[in-house]
Amino acid sequence: METVSTSRAFGGTQGIYRHASTSTGTTMTFAVYVPPHEAGARLPVVWFLSGLTCTHANVTDKGEYRRACAELGLIFVAPDTSPRGEGVPDDPAGAYDFGLGAGFYVDATQQPYAQHYRMWSYVTDELPALVAEHFPADMERQGITGHSMGGHGALTIALRQPRRFRSISAFAPIVAPSRVPWGAKAFTGYLGSDHGAWAHYDAITLIKRGARVGDLLVDQGAADEFLADQLLPELLQEACEAAGVPLTFRLQPGYDHSYNFISTFMADHLAWHAERLR
Amino acid sequence: METVSTSRAFGGTQGIYRHASTSTGTTMTFAVYVPPHEAGARLPVVWFLSGLTCTHANVTDKGEYRRACAELGLIFVAPDTSPRGEGVPDDPAGAYDFGLGAGFYVDATQQPYAQHYRMWSYVTDELPALVAEHFPADMERQGITGHSMGGHGALTIALRQPRRFRSISAFAPIVAPSRVPWGAKAFTGYLGSDHGAWAHYDAITLIKRGARVGDLLVDQGAADEFLADQLLPELLQEACEAAGVPLTFRLQPGYDHSYNFISTFMADHLAWHAERLR
Repeated sequence: METVSTSRAFGGTQGIYRHASTSTGTTMTFAVYVPPHEAGARLPVVWFLSGLTCTHANVTDKGEYRRACAELGLIFVAPDTSPRGEGVPDDPAGAYDFGLGAGFYVDATQQPYAQHYRMWSYVTDELPALVAEHFPADMERQGITGHSMGGHGALTIALRQPRRFRSISAFAPIVAPSRVPWGAKAFTGYLGSDHGAWAHYDAITLIKRGARVGDLLVDQGAADEFLADQLLPELLQEACEAAGVPLTFRLQPGYDHSYNFISTFMADHLAWHAERLR
Repeated sequence: METVSTSRAFGGTQGIYRHASTSTGTTMTFAVYVPPHEAGARLPVVWFLSGLTCTHANVTDKGEYRRACAELGLIFVAPDTSPRGEGVPDDPAGAYDFGLGAGFYVDATQQPYAQHYRMWSYVTDELPALVAEHFPADMERQGITGHSMGGHGALTIALRQPRRFRSISAFAPIVAPSRVPWGAKAFTGYLGSDHGAWAHYDAITLIKRGARVGDLLVDQGAADEFLADQLLPELLQEACEAAGVPLTFRLQPGYDHSYNFISTFMADHLAWHAERLR
């Protein structure tokens, strides 16, 4: 692991790092904020998975998480959203919603994506091991959250690895990728047209098939331009109710899909995680 | 004035606007955050002048001012740092420290810069009138702050217009542009080699010649890479002491020149302004 930069922030350290990933076969960049802490302390970790078009940098620049992480004693990890670099295939038309910046947190099985697009393995296996090795992280205390495509990532990873996460939340998540244009395009491209393969990466399907988590916090902007076509939070509300999963769902009047929405509610989410990670 | 975008944030509205500036003869873009407020209320205004290479967007994305502004009831205005667009001359070598993104808050007198580089008039006259017209601003309650080149702008504008500002602060300001490489290059290019013209834009010289402000808050990172060559805060400390200007100067161990430094202390600065703008 190579340190790209470190910078003091809110008494802790905001770092940017990169490494040669065996999962993706590329150089991957990620950001970690370590709050002020006593020497030798092991701190809980919150994972933030970003949305379409993002790198690690978007939430690092605009997420406004550092003050709350410093106060609550949380490590904050922000991975990239796809492999990048020479030889990594992109969307054939260069669209924003597939390929670079749009890995959808799956392990692709289809060509030409299967070689590099292995974000599921990267985020669930390789990067956690790296974080455990290089940072003062207590890996028994992990939480996960994310935005939009990253909210989809957070929900599906938590549903499939419930023991790994004590706390789960999401900002304007894609909850049913199989049923919406963004998800259907991505899953077709990465996983093929067999819907059986899609089910492993669809939060609603996972809940309906019996996957469970402790409780969930979801914020959703009521003025989000993607609400009706891509996000469909009502499907999550129905699935959680039917499954008995406690869901705190907050429709936030006037808020859109941007980091102005995310940053406004970031401190609430981090407090939610901190409570469950104590 | 044209609205580029508005987005709900921390209960208020983050807007981006543009207009045809008569000062610069260009289209100028700026950002205004209006906190939640009662209908008909008039709110105090804090101006944030940005540093080299920045547009309005840097502090808007990375400054983390909205939570504090919402809590304290402050309007926050972030202008651009130079004219831009077709026909606006840049640094002949394309350097970052002159021309585009580096207007230094002066009215240029030298060719080819004199036509468009009129950031002093823009920030002190034209933009305040526009803000007063279009936002719920109480122009009797204005504060000013800024970073680096923008700290220079904040100090010199406040020193020359002390009645306009009830509160003044700066983050890692250039305090003596006449004596440091960044400032000498900019002043030579915009104002010519006559140091008499430089004096109007040099905070230390202004204080020595009798300009006064109420009190000042200045934060400076101790690990700032520009501290020894470009910033020289000790000159401000000496000048304020000699002039009897109350200066709260805080050297912040470990902090660099980046927005990680600015965002860490932004809430402190806004509280300083709010106290004086009540």
